[in-house]
Amino acid sequence: MAESTSDTMSRRTGVFWGKKYYVIITGASAGIGREIAVAFSKQAAECSVFVITGRNSERLTETKRLVCDVAPGVQVILKTMDHSKATFEDYRKLISETSAKISGADGVVLVHNAATLGDVKKYAIAYTDEKEIDDYFHLNVTSVMTLTSAFLEKFSSSSTIPRFIVNITSLAAIKPFVGTGLYCTGKAAREMYLNVIAVEDPSLTVLHYSPGPVDTAMHHELRRGVKEAAATAYGARDSGMLLTPEATVLRLVQVLGAQEFKSGDHVDYFDRKPC
Amino acid sequence: MAESTSDTMSRRTGVFWGKKYYVIITGASAGIGREIAVAFSKQAAECSVFVITGRNSERLTETKRLVCDVAPGVQVILKTMDHSKATFEDYRKLISETSAKISGADGVVLVHNAATLGDVKKYAIAYTDEKEIDDYFHLNVTSVMTLTSAFLEKFSSSSTIPRFIVNITSLAAIKPFVGTGLYCTGKAAREMYLNVIAVEDPSLTVLHYSPGPVDTAMHHELRRGVKEAAATAYGARDSGMLLTPEATVLRLVQVLGAQEFKSGDHVDYFDRKPC
Repeated sequence: MAESTSDTMSRRTGVFWGKKYYVIITGASAGIGREIAVAFSKQAAECSVFVITGRNSERLTETKRLVCDVAPGVQVILKTMDHSKATFEDYRKLISETSAKISGADGVVLVHNAATLGDVKKYAIAYTDEKEIDDYFHLNVTSVMTLTSAFLEKFSSSSTIPRFIVNITSLAAIKPFVGTGLYCTGKAAREMYLNVIAVEDPSLTVLHYSPGPVDTAMHHELRRGVKEAAATAYGARDSGMLLTPEATVLRLVQVLGAQEFKSGDHVDYFDRKPC
Repeated sequence: MAESTSDTMSRRTGVFWGKKYYVIITGASAGIGREIAVAFSKQAAECSVFVITGRNSERLTETKRLVCDVAPGVQVILKTMDHSKATFEDYRKLISETSAKISGADGVVLVHNAATLGDVKKYAIAYTDEKEIDDYFHLNVTSVMTLTSAFLEKFSSSSTIPRFIVNITSLAAIKPFVGTGLYCTGKAAREMYLNVIAVEDPSLTVLHYSPGPVDTAMHHELRRGVKEAAATAYGARDSGMLLTPEATVLRLVQVLGAQEFKSGDHVDYFDRKPC
């Protein structure tokens, strides 16, 4: 059944998929990031190179194993790293070393997936800890900026291959929610920064993909937040809206495949057009 | 002539103005911040208390002198402080000490005006200095959060007096511009954070006011930016669009006076309704 869906999709998504890609996916040790690694590798051509990052080596190794199962022709490079500490120089080195493993790539893709929810046990009206806030922005915004700069230094506008940046975002980037002040603020900041990138370099493509409510560790964390945040989380679960990582990433694969978006667009899982 | 405009406005803006306010204005040593201090003090009742902050004592003293000239009944408290270093505890102390100077306030107003432009000599595709980025967010977003929290700790939703937060924002908060990546990102983040505050505490009022292109030191800085940023700045100047601080703050005074906005709205100088 999965094969058949995948086959149908391959035919539909000829514009983007089926090519040899150099792909970086941050936060690929679980959840949506892991599923992006698996689903993208199935759609990419042999000899593509996937660089997956995350803090947990063991879980990253499991992601690598899953990718190798479904896409044995894809080379997976596992890089254990903490984006709250990695510097521009670390990113530059990572990209320099790993991009050397591919020759004649048809395109390059950077997926900003790593993110944290912030402390959802407190309201934004009581943010009193400067360090906690600064650390949040460093991980969720600053590191996105420096990694993007390292990526665009290596693959500049003078390169002729197509370049894509996928930002895993949220409805929270465009709509404020009670109890998730840092998350909303960080996601809004990430989108705006990448939209500046999109206007500065019109030859690259930026996609903000909002995956909807997904059954991940982050969603479980939300359930332990302030009552309004918990109610939203339980509401999504109890109404049957909660998606699997597979379902939402399948939609992302389709969106990229169809290329029916403009650079800088925010596309939500629930934006589906009627068939 | 100025008197007559002011008198006309006072009659129009009876809802908000003419009352005894406790007001905090950050970055009041020049430009828009200074003009907000002057214009708001003219509209506030006697015995209002205005707390003005900034890094430059001499220029803050000049702001205080200007306020005392036009509104001798208003008490001005000058606080030399650097928002890139001030902590939540500093803000808590500031508010505790200065709010004790007013009794029976009809309302409290926090104006987040202090902001920096960031280095407009570099493009966002080349943000390689983590510390520079982190410092930018600390000053432009984190300090806004901790000052707001200190303000709302003192004037909580259980207080019965009206509470207002005015965020001096920019078109750059909602539209990406080449060469001002940090500015756009910081302004977008500030708006989202304050919109979370607005949904968390519906009894307070948040207004984002975008002053348009104003002839300030920041606008001069923009002219020295990358070519696209400089072109935007010179374009505004050469087309005669550049506003004086007086003109744009007059509009802000009118917007507040008329109270024709919802909490969380982004109101631009150029959003004027036809007369």
